[in-house]
Amino acid sequence: MADYPPSARRLISVLRELPSVGPRSAERLALHLLQRDEALNKALENALAEVRQKISHCPICGFFSEGASCEICRDPKRDQSTICVVEDAADVIAVEKSEAYQGVYHVLGGTLSPLDEIGPEDLAIAPLLTRLRESQTPVREVIIALGSDVKGETTSLYLAKLLHDFNIQVSRPATGISVGGDLEYADSQTLSHAFSQRRRIHEPPTSNP
Amino acid sequence: MADYPPSARRLISVLRELPSVGPRSAERLALHLLQRDEALNKALENALAEVRQKISHCPICGFFSEGASCEICRDPKRDQSTICVVEDAADVIAVEKSEAYQGVYHVLGGTLSPLDEIGPEDLAIAPLLTRLRESQTPVREVIIALGSDVKGETTSLYLAKLLHDFNIQVSRPATGISVGGDLEYADSQTLSHAFSQRRRIHEPPTSNP
Repeated sequence: MADYPPSARRLISVLRELPSVGPRSAERLALHLLQRDEALNKALENALAEVRQKISHCPICGFFSEGASCEICRDPKRDQSTICVVEDAADVIAVEKSEAYQGVYHVLGGTLSPLDEIGPEDLAIAPLLTRLRESQTPVREVIIALGSDVKGETTSLYLAKLLHDFNIQVSRPATGISVGGDLEYADSQTLSHAFSQRRRIHEPPTSNP
Repeated sequence: MADYPPSARRLISVLRELPSVGPRSAERLALHLLQRDEALNKALENALAEVRQKISHCPICGFFSEGASCEICRDPKRDQSTICVVEDAADVIAVEKSEAYQGVYHVLGGTLSPLDEIGPEDLAIAPLLTRLRESQTPVREVIIALGSDVKGETTSLYLAKLLHDFNIQVSRPATGISVGGDLEYADSQTLSHAFSQRRRIHEPPTSNP
């Protein structure tokens, strides 16, 4: 029984590792790249090389960046005293699309998940605390905008507890994000509502009576 | 409103051009390649470069090849006197998987489609006729194994007409109910074919001596 040449089989097996690409899709994608569209093959190769060379994670917030820091952290118009904590970069884009938020972000890089052996040390939690302590602009509010699934809830509670000792308002976007849904799949309207109706978890202890 | 960095947006738009990849999938694939898996990014880039360097079309049959001719045309065990005409390389693999065929192939590279302005000159039809005339091993049979949709049927009829003048047996795979398939899931067209081309299992005892 003849099969694709070795290099084509390697391409299929690499494509197979992409999310939601099954064996049939991988074969279809490879065939498209092989026989119909050599220009696309080259364009994809260049695009992959380019992102690998250019894109790094912003040392401040963890979002994608092509320079020393990301577009959002660099922007003088953004409110540096409000930090929105999200799971990943796609969530940053989702919130940005809602145009309901003018502050900055902090990308955790995941959520706590004991079953997958993802603990606090695997997420950008320590850098968040350092950032709150050392920020030039004092941080007044942290919005914990993680998904409302179990992992997201657990991580939100964990963070809320950690942030309790800081003199910061901690809030969460209002429910309105569909329960059990991922932030990145919420539509802009829902996200906009959720941000304007965020619930307070902690008020800073009032210094004066 | 902040967006992905330019190089990431370029990767998304390239991925978007792949078959059955919509805007959301393209974003998801790009994010996976960007944030979760740099090794996969590199592996994909290498695989793309490798197929572009190594893979060409076999000058005899049009299937993928890494050498002067493809694995199948080179194989001395294959029956060079039987040629199976298929639409594309994926069909070669499908027939190979069935392990029901020991001959060689001829990849047309598509089917006739006047609406898409695909005429006989856009397919490997002239090379097929040359091959039939000039083959070292005389060709005894051509199996036209194109899809049984309208375009496939049209192309099959066109080829059958062209091959009429050659001293060759021309055949097509049987159409009918798929093996292991339920009758109720077969479409009417298929059932109609299956009934009109039914195979006899028993002949009635001859009434005349």
